[in-house]
Amino acid sequence: MYSFKNDYSEGAHPNILKALMESNMEQTEGYGEDKYSIGAIKLLKEKLKRNDVDIHMFCGGTQTNLTAISAFLRSHEAVISANTGHVLIHETGAIEATGHKVISMEVEDGKLKPIHIQMAIDEHTDEHMVKPKMAYISNPTEIGTIYKKKELEELYGYCKKNNMILYIDGARLGSALCSKENDIEISDLPKLADVFYIGGTKNGALLGEALIICKEGLKEDFRYHIKQKGGLLAKGRLMGIQFLELFKNDLYFELARHANFMAETLRIGIKKCGYEFLINSSTNQIFPILPNKIIENLQEKYLFFVWQKIDENNSALRLVTSWATKEESVKSFIDDLKLISK
Amino acid sequence: MYSFKNDYSEGAHPNILKALMESNMEQTEGYGEDKYSIGAIKLLKEKLKRNDVDIHMFCGGTQTNLTAISAFLRSHEAVISANTGHVLIHETGAIEATGHKVISMEVEDGKLKPIHIQMAIDEHTDEHMVKPKMAYISNPTEIGTIYKKKELEELYGYCKKNNMILYIDGARLGSALCSKENDIEISDLPKLADVFYIGGTKNGALLGEALIICKEGLKEDFRYHIKQKGGLLAKGRLMGIQFLELFKNDLYFELARHANFMAETLRIGIKKCGYEFLINSSTNQIFPILPNKIIENLQEKYLFFVWQKIDENNSALRLVTSWATKEESVKSFIDDLKLISK
Amino acid sequence: MYSFKNDYSEGAHPNILKALMESNMEQTEGYGEDKYSIGAIKLLKEKLKRNDVDIHMFCGGTQTNLTAISAFLRSHEAVISANTGHVLIHETGAIEATGHKVISMEVEDGKLKPIHIQMAIDEHTDEHMVKPKMAYISNPTEIGTIYKKKELEELYGYCKKNNMILYIDGARLGSALCSKENDIEISDLPKLADVFYIGGTKNGALLGEALIICKEGLKEDFRYHIKQKGGLLAKGRLMGIQFLELFKNDLYFELARHANFMAETLRIGIKKCGYEFLINSSTNQIFPILPNKIIENLQEKYLFFVWQKIDENNSALRLVTSWATKEESVKSFIDDLKLISK
Amino acid sequence: MYSFKNDYSEGAHPNILKALMESNMEQTEGYGEDKYSIGAIKLLKEKLKRNDVDIHMFCGGTQTNLTAISAFLRSHEAVISANTGHVLIHETGAIEATGHKVISMEVEDGKLKPIHIQMAIDEHTDEHMVKPKMAYISNPTEIGTIYKKKELEELYGYCKKNNMILYIDGARLGSALCSKENDIEISDLPKLADVFYIGGTKNGALLGEALIICKEGLKEDFRYHIKQKGGLLAKGRLMGIQFLELFKNDLYFELARHANFMAETLRIGIKKCGYEFLINSSTNQIFPILPNKIIENLQEKYLFFVWQKIDENNSALRLVTSWATKEESVKSFIDDLKLISK
Repeated sequence: MYSFKNDYSEGAHPNILKALMESNMEQTEGYGEDKYSIGAIKLLKEKLKRNDVDIHMFCGGTQTNLTAISAFLRSHEAVISANTGHVLIHETGAIEATGHKVISMEVEDGKLKPIHIQMAIDEHTDEHMVKPKMAYISNPTEIGTIYKKKELEELYGYCKKNNMILYIDGARLGSALCSKENDIEISDLPKLADVFYIGGTKNGALLGEALIICKEGLKEDFRYHIKQKGGLLAKGRLMGIQFLELFKNDLYFELARHANFMAETLRIGIKKCGYEFLINSSTNQIFPILPNKIIENLQEKYLFFVWQKIDENNSALRLVTSWATKEESVKSFIDDLKLISK
Repeated sequence: MYSFKNDYSEGAHPNILKALMESNMEQTEGYGEDKYSIGAIKLLKEKLKRNDVDIHMFCGGTQTNLTAISAFLRSHEAVISANTGHVLIHETGAIEATGHKVISMEVEDGKLKPIHIQMAIDEHTDEHMVKPKMAYISNPTEIGTIYKKKELEELYGYCKKNNMILYIDGARLGSALCSKENDIEISDLPKLADVFYIGGTKNGALLGEALIICKEGLKEDFRYHIKQKGGLLAKGRLMGIQFLELFKNDLYFELARHANFMAETLRIGIKKCGYEFLINSSTNQIFPILPNKIIENLQEKYLFFVWQKIDENNSALRLVTSWATKEESVKSFIDDLKLISK
Repeated sequence: MYSFKNDYSEGAHPNILKALMESNMEQTEGYGEDKYSIGAIKLLKEKLKRNDVDIHMFCGGTQTNLTAISAFLRSHEAVISANTGHVLIHETGAIEATGHKVISMEVEDGKLKPIHIQMAIDEHTDEHMVKPKMAYISNPTEIGTIYKKKELEELYGYCKKNNMILYIDGARLGSALCSKENDIEISDLPKLADVFYIGGTKNGALLGEALIICKEGLKEDFRYHIKQKGGLLAKGRLMGIQFLELFKNDLYFELARHANFMAETLRIGIKKCGYEFLINSSTNQIFPILPNKIIENLQEKYLFFVWQKIDENNSALRLVTSWATKEESVKSFIDDLKLISK
Repeated sequence: MYSFKNDYSEGAHPNILKALMESNMEQTEGYGEDKYSIGAIKLLKEKLKRNDVDIHMFCGGTQTNLTAISAFLRSHEAVISANTGHVLIHETGAIEATGHKVISMEVEDGKLKPIHIQMAIDEHTDEHMVKPKMAYISNPTEIGTIYKKKELEELYGYCKKNNMILYIDGARLGSALCSKENDIEISDLPKLADVFYIGGTKNGALLGEALIICKEGLKEDFRYHIKQKGGLLAKGRLMGIQFLELFKNDLYFELARHANFMAETLRIGIKKCGYEFLINSSTNQIFPILPNKIIENLQEKYLFFVWQKIDENNSALRLVTSWATKEESVKSFIDDLKLISK
């Protein structure tokens, strides 16, 4: 059985393990104050071309989201999210558990736009309702779509005009930045959001997300919040070493490009077999619509999520590729599909 | 500079890195539902000689404490802790951030006894005060002392009689169980507490703590809480693989014995030089009292915490050893001390 | 200017003030343990024909909702509410501030039905999402509609079958129970919900809501939660005295009937002028649709909320009547409308 | 039985009930936006000689404390309190339930001094601990002592220098300001603290505390917090009317002077009988030490709390007087004591 279920099925990129081995018996400071973490932060600042951002490393996305959002908001302030947003649906109420409402806005393509923020602001008129204060977006979105530079500029401009914080969940940021449709450089991001994170777990790390705080007023005392929410690893070097490896020689982008290429290969192959897609995605998640019988057939050799029922006879799948996806497995999947589809 | 600052200065035991390498490209399920995590839980149950406990793996102690305590208590219920307790002092209010008061009880040796719980219960008389519901202890304590079997039996008996939960923070549990003063088997623990955790981070793992829930009523829906608090790692196998290695062939105990032996060697050497100790500890933390001038001298070659001022001329140090502490470094420290002390 | 904005524009029913005067200089116990509060609880139990319920008095609806919901749920459990629900929209995230998500279900008439609970349960499949545990309904709903006995029986049956708590917000319960469409006795309610409250503030009291906990498992230590959330009034007798007055000689129902009668009079009068209604309500809130010009005209003499834009030229109003609404004011409103509408 | 248990045994001062009667059928805006609340705020500003403070009315002390403290602090920030502080001990963990630790400082006379704040700051050294951000004091303290002007000046100066908020719980503020030892005018208070509240419940109101926010940065969006915590009464006028009455013609101070005079009369009478006092209090709570046999005798006719065991044969009582305490009851208590003591 080969799995297209997600992009965290394997361990870490070999370079990372190698670096862990080499540094293993060295003594370092704890809690992210070691030379590796410091080095990783320095390297990330170079990649971002910004020395005035604060960078903190976390061991998971939910941990990052809940720590950042609760650190930045007062208790009556709320987050706006697309109805597909990870913080809204898939984090067991982590944000609410820190005391904040997540306002759901119905969108079509997973993307929050100024109009949605406007609507949320208009609906929340007085002190009997929460006050929308942050816009949460994911890039790529939970359904694989990405934001174009112009979209982010408009969104961020709108947020700033309305005194709102723009937060980008970058769990799969590499895949967005390496998408063929993308027109954003990683160094553009500090100009396009108040805060964002660069996801490592889903792009070759054992674990690790790097949170970038760009807006001055959000930086103060942030390490207190990491500790309070349980995210301050004693051996913080574990994340420093990984981010150093990922951004040395741009391995991070190389891995994301591979994941995207594997997804694109699948997409083209599936399309050639005559199938449509639920969503037009250019990242490492694709959503082909297949007849149920064919799906059952594929399930004998492949693991993947059946995403959504389309009609009595057809369903959409979610296929996810990663830095570790093998070209031969992709080829084999397409060959099998061709064969079954005849 | 050689560091005796803590037991998390190095990476992981080589066996662990080796196992990570070997399993690296294998595809597994996410979120701790992989075969390694399942295997580690099975192995731990064997070591504990109990099949009816629930085991969950976390990536840090604060994360474990805050998730467990908030999952087990209703909002008016409070935790009792010794005044030296980690949850009380050193977790940036992590427990309070989940809504619960930590009641501090003044103790002498870091250890909570039935009398302290009695006092806390007596002081909290009605609904205008929180209701003490859990006793939190650490074994070893934050100052290196340990609980004897009889002490735990009395404490747990007292808790059960008063309908209170007994929780053991085992961040350094290996060191307690391998102390020369210890009379507790790891398989005794499920009979001595409602819930406890086995710390990996401070005994050879990159990260990882295994929470053991013994009491039936505390088990339900626990994974929801791990996810909500940000502790459910996508690549949960990272912890499964480590605990498998640590408990295969009892490596965990071997490492703890080494740490304790290094501490004992230091203790004997320091004593021979004629110095006293602040606390009588039999685990991997020792607290010698040295003249300030000698301390300054040692600080040129060694890193450690100055724990407490004793008088104008003397202070107590904290020296921590670990699975990775080198015998030659210990010897060198003692030799240097001898030399300076002349 | 006469106000139809809400049902809390005036003070209290004169009987209540009289009772406050008469008891004023008497010394009583604090925190709701006085003879008036005890007497009110006894009287309410008689009206409910149930001696085995627990009753607690609060000074406001939001206070009641947030205290009860947070006392009853564990941190991963969520409340299901209609998209018009008060806890969802109009309490400034009070429920989320205690750590719980409120799940919004789109409904048409303000009423949650078994199908909505089913949908919420179906959508929340695993520990990556919150766990729906309570259904929150209001009777009457926020838009004036009411639940029929059969509807509540089905809903409560469904909840019990799915191990969910049914909570009824009765801020305007009197108006529901005195609606011409109602077929529920107040003594039916303990059989139709796990917990509900009888609203006093909107039916003649200065302040006061009586929470009735019917389900055994929800009763324990409840007073701790009232105190913790700031709802335990030192002079709790203030609420005891009021509920005694309200339920002595069924004044509560008399007042609600008057409010409903005033609303019905308005409804008939407006209908006679040829206007339609946005919602078919039989309680003390009505929602007529009027031309904007006529609305502007009415606004010179009357206060009310413009509820919703219908089209370019028409809007729906909300008119609320109460125990204190004067027949002559209703008559005058209708006369004015007739005159303007010609 | 005559009660000296507390200062909230009776209803409200007759002037208040009269004002409630007179205004009863008037229609006003809800949620504290009525003319009475606006008028009360205006009057309080005049008494405080400050137009630039924000004033909000609450229906209880715990409600006030928890709303204000949680609105003002970020989640890693903590409150320092004397070990006798109400928020520390007697509010069922209300502050912790909003996520904040209350740091207890051992004091002798119920009063927090700069040295205690210094100690708390010194003990909290880094991000592994909470950050002390607010000093909470009560005036009078929970044991009846009061702060002198110079003490408050020093404390507030120290707080400002250390970027900390000074909060005064004024549940019994009237009694402090009317104490014979007091040298503070009510109009001094905005210069002596960032925020404080004027307690009504314990000085003649049915309920009601007026929170005064002096510091600019703490004012924003405060009404959202009142609503979220359940403290925004629909009939907010209930508090406006009461504070208007209390501060019209300085009734508030007249009532407090009476309470203090009754306490002083008791104190002198008890002293004449030859008894000592546990605490030297000049407000409406006194703590005489009496032989247990005499206490038992008094308990046949009077209600009061036995505060503390002194030795085998003696205990300290707490006697509380109020605006409503009858001179004849005080006289009778002393006469009885004299008689028994012979």
